[in-house]
Amino acid sequence: MTSGSARTETVGDLGEFPLISLITRNLTLPPAVSVGPGDDCAAFLINGSALTTTDMLIEGIHFRKSWSSPAEVGHKAVAVNLADVEAMGGTPVAMVISLGMPADLPLTWVKEFMTGVREEAERGQVALVGGDMTAARDISISVTVIGETGGRTPILRSGARPGDVVAVCGRLGWAAAGLAALLRGFRSPRAAVDSQRAPQVPYGAGRQAADAGASAMIDVSDGLLADLGHIAAASGVTIDLDPARFTIADPVQAVAAALNADPLKFVLTGGEDHAMAATFAPGTVPDGWDVVGQVHEPDDENGVGVLVDGAHWEGDQGWTHFRS
Amino acid sequence: MTSGSARTETVGDLGEFPLISLITRNLTLPPAVSVGPGDDCAAFLINGSALTTTDMLIEGIHFRKSWSSPAEVGHKAVAVNLADVEAMGGTPVAMVISLGMPADLPLTWVKEFMTGVREEAERGQVALVGGDMTAARDISISVTVIGETGGRTPILRSGARPGDVVAVCGRLGWAAAGLAALLRGFRSPRAAVDSQRAPQVPYGAGRQAADAGASAMIDVSDGLLADLGHIAAASGVTIDLDPARFTIADPVQAVAAALNADPLKFVLTGGEDHAMAATFAPGTVPDGWDVVGQVHEPDDENGVGVLVDGAHWEGDQGWTHFRS
Repeated sequence: MTSGSARTETVGDLGEFPLISLITRNLTLPPAVSVGPGDDCAAFLINGSALTTTDMLIEGIHFRKSWSSPAEVGHKAVAVNLADVEAMGGTPVAMVISLGMPADLPLTWVKEFMTGVREEAERGQVALVGGDMTAARDISISVTVIGETGGRTPILRSGARPGDVVAVCGRLGWAAAGLAALLRGFRSPRAAVDSQRAPQVPYGAGRQAADAGASAMIDVSDGLLADLGHIAAASGVTIDLDPARFTIADPVQAVAAALNADPLKFVLTGGEDHAMAATFAPGTVPDGWDVVGQVHEPDDENGVGVLVDGAHWEGDQGWTHFRS
Repeated sequence: MTSGSARTETVGDLGEFPLISLITRNLTLPPAVSVGPGDDCAAFLINGSALTTTDMLIEGIHFRKSWSSPAEVGHKAVAVNLADVEAMGGTPVAMVISLGMPADLPLTWVKEFMTGVREEAERGQVALVGGDMTAARDISISVTVIGETGGRTPILRSGARPGDVVAVCGRLGWAAAGLAALLRGFRSPRAAVDSQRAPQVPYGAGRQAADAGASAMIDVSDGLLADLGHIAAASGVTIDLDPARFTIADPVQAVAAALNADPLKFVLTGGEDHAMAATFAPGTVPDGWDVVGQVHEPDDENGVGVLVDGAHWEGDQGWTHFRS
């Protein structure tokens, strides 16, 4: 029971079913979706094979309410999943979202979060078709996206071949530079800080790469070296990156200069930007993609893995959870 | 770093990637799944329309480590989703699971949880194809199941028609009786307590109902009155239940007698058993289903909703989150 009008309305004040109504209000469903939210399951058509991916974001681990607006968290929760569908060369179709929330969470947080979710879903062209809602101590968000391959063959991590080139599309190092700035108490450069809060996925680049015949692809979530390491391991190859081929963006340069850091470190090891990295036969790299390296047979000296200018990169490869 | 052999090995000791390897080890994938865990997305074939549903379980809200074994939590996390696919008359195909865990969680908890997940997936015939793992303060579990309609029309909540009968298949009141027993500090009757910890979904009953031409169906997660209320609302009908038609199971009788409670209350309002409730044209109810009520045109007096013996049931209808 609320005691007066001055108190902020919370999730607990509204209750579960009105909250679900609020979240699903005025949803537009595309023709492929025959059953949207409100039944035991959603139902929709899939063209080709189904693709699926899921990500969980936890308050205090993946975001902080004091750093990210609710809308930014919503954008991020959707974008990280759409990037995975993109990285298979697929097309997103449907999305479900589960939300765990403390009862004292202001209702405005949920409303603004859902605005971010819906805006990103619109950008990536995916339909919100269902979800779940529960009480929780920390805000806990789980998004699953189901996509389709259509007429394309899914692009796996295991298809890179010696002689291929490595190319990237999208932002690299922006989120890491933004995080470094935030950790020092800065709120600029704005573009880098915004990238940390909500990635700018290069929607369409994955399908473009698939159409161009990409041999392997991944989205850069943990850092370029770490994620290309997954391609190298799955394909049994060595990838050699040429640092001179990277265009280092102005906001990344600015943060590196302010913190007296190497901007290449942000580019090579920074995660959370969700750029696409792929391998192609030489001469088949599509417009908008930058060639940054080569795929080789693993030699006796270096084995399977990722090199930078022919040598092992010193320092962190990227981010893992539960690091000892 | 561990200091010696006496210390329990934790999630944090092992680290993210070895933990993923442990969880995905020796997975058997059916022919419909072309890409399993380990790439950006899983890929699999869908026959007919895709169906999807998701549920989130949070430690301290949906389960307590002191009450439920890790395997029971695993069973429950999978079963609640499979029941939703069942309630559409669908067939499960693929499942993704996200796990948020504190770094000090013993590794044995995760191993036993995954044993429960895999056993329930085997029972319900669904393939684990991917997931996510992250640090979290409380154990946070999100499962999404993708199913297929095959040659069947999905059975919605909105199809009940005046003149239909209402029938149920599966356990009713067992989990609620088990919870009541646990709350009083009892650990028996074992069958009821076990039902509270992990539901026994009547796998196959939903497809059986769809084949028999069920007009509407739902799985009983919040309580029979509450869930039939969803069918009544979606279909614009009144459902009248006949209390004399319910067979009250021995464990439910035993708990009711011990606590001096009305066993019918457990049957009508107890959730978490994930029985199936459906409506059928008279004479089409399949074997193994019990007729417990009738569907009527809503009259001026009672309107759309659920009655028990022609009257409104006094008291709680079931469970909602964030109740004020």
